[in-house]
Amino acid sequence: MTYTLVLVRHGESDWNAKNLFTGWVDVDLTEKGRAEAVHAGELIKESGVLPDVVHTSLLRRAITTANVSLDVADRHWIPVRRDWRLNERHYGALQGKNKKQTLETYGEERFMEWRRSYDTPPPPIDVDDEFSQHGDPRYADLGDAMPRTECLKDVVARMTPYWLGPIQDDLKAGHVVMLAAHGNSLRALVKMLDEISDEDIAALNIPTGMPLVYELDDDFRPVTRGGRYLDPEAARAAAEAVANQGR
Amino acid sequence: MTYTLVLVRHGESDWNAKNLFTGWVDVDLTEKGRAEAVHAGELIKESGVLPDVVHTSLLRRAITTANVSLDVADRHWIPVRRDWRLNERHYGALQGKNKKQTLETYGEERFMEWRRSYDTPPPPIDVDDEFSQHGDPRYADLGDAMPRTECLKDVVARMTPYWLGPIQDDLKAGHVVMLAAHGNSLRALVKMLDEISDEDIAALNIPTGMPLVYELDDDFRPVTRGGRYLDPEAARAAAEAVANQGR
Repeated sequence: MTYTLVLVRHGESDWNAKNLFTGWVDVDLTEKGRAEAVHAGELIKESGVLPDVVHTSLLRRAITTANVSLDVADRHWIPVRRDWRLNERHYGALQGKNKKQTLETYGEERFMEWRRSYDTPPPPIDVDDEFSQHGDPRYADLGDAMPRTECLKDVVARMTPYWLGPIQDDLKAGHVVMLAAHGNSLRALVKMLDEISDEDIAALNIPTGMPLVYELDDDFRPVTRGGRYLDPEAARAAAEAVANQGR
Repeated sequence: MTYTLVLVRHGESDWNAKNLFTGWVDVDLTEKGRAEAVHAGELIKESGVLPDVVHTSLLRRAITTANVSLDVADRHWIPVRRDWRLNERHYGALQGKNKKQTLETYGEERFMEWRRSYDTPPPPIDVDDEFSQHGDPRYADLGDAMPRTECLKDVVARMTPYWLGPIQDDLKAGHVVMLAAHGNSLRALVKMLDEISDEDIAALNIPTGMPLVYELDDDFRPVTRGGRYLDPEAARAAAEAVANQGR
């Protein structure tokens, strides 16, 4: 008995295209991002690894990725679960800021620390900042747990109960579980699955719109470390890109 | 304390446009049908009657209507529930048949009986008919309860437990509940809500893509019989259309 988990990172969003820090700001996919979702759906359909249930974040770019890809894969009718714990990392005061300007203002060292260090969050966002989610009804239940900034370690901390609870519950029920989520919520999960160190996780990138399948054993450990991409050619390109980053 | 229910019938589908009996065949919306869903979302957003949870059938045309309209209304992130009990009436052996040809083959009397009588279903569909849903994984749990044809009375019978259970549960939790469904599953519900007789229900049409809001009292009885449309002008046009049909 193995469990099957399908991870899909949303494709290009309006703010990726504009080079802005996004985090919890609820921007839409670009046309390219929608095309990536269509392609993800085609790969899922061809592979025969058909999700029985989908979990999404509360953010439009992941929700639309799920809607579009599942429609293409003829799995639009499966149950849907949504949770803020699958959201992108909260980018704090950097949300809505231009990446290039931020680099120029704060310098390379702090910039890279905020982007890639495991446990240094950016400065917290002001509750009345135009890019704060303070007062957004979708987070009404969070109360004091509502983050104003997050480092990857914080994302791991909030993802852990969701992984151990709702996701594993669906896996135990025998369902193929799809997660439609974000670069950092998926990195947090993969860190747990593959037992990647706090240092090594910095070099891990999950490509967008490319379904990544993990077969898991009885103890929810990956049968193959790193899982497998449904598009082997794209997997190779992704592996090379990571290698070129000096890993 | 009143409860709020928002009914949305999906817009034009490929087979509406082609004049074919559809039933449980899982056809897509046309561009016009998508535009109707966008308009429904705009009306919901403007009205401020914002759904907290959405229930859909297992059919693409209702699911896409929910996805598109809720995205436009900025409510894409609400919980989703899906159930076959919200499906369109199963049209039996007529599924996939041209309406004009069916009229010519069987004559006006039988044709109208199948379309509008309360308790006469069309002949059952063959399990190996190309338009049968036999073996479709989304109905795997139904077993012997899987219909091969339905009259409106059958739809009322299968909608009743879903209305008394999952829908009322969400209303009791204080949620504004949206249903994205079909002409006949919504007629079945409205028949129960407004206590319409088996005879009078034949004359009731629910217009497509036009959110219909019911405020309900403690006993789940409509505060205003017939509810209210979010677009009053369209409501008037719909009322006139019904009047012109000789009601």
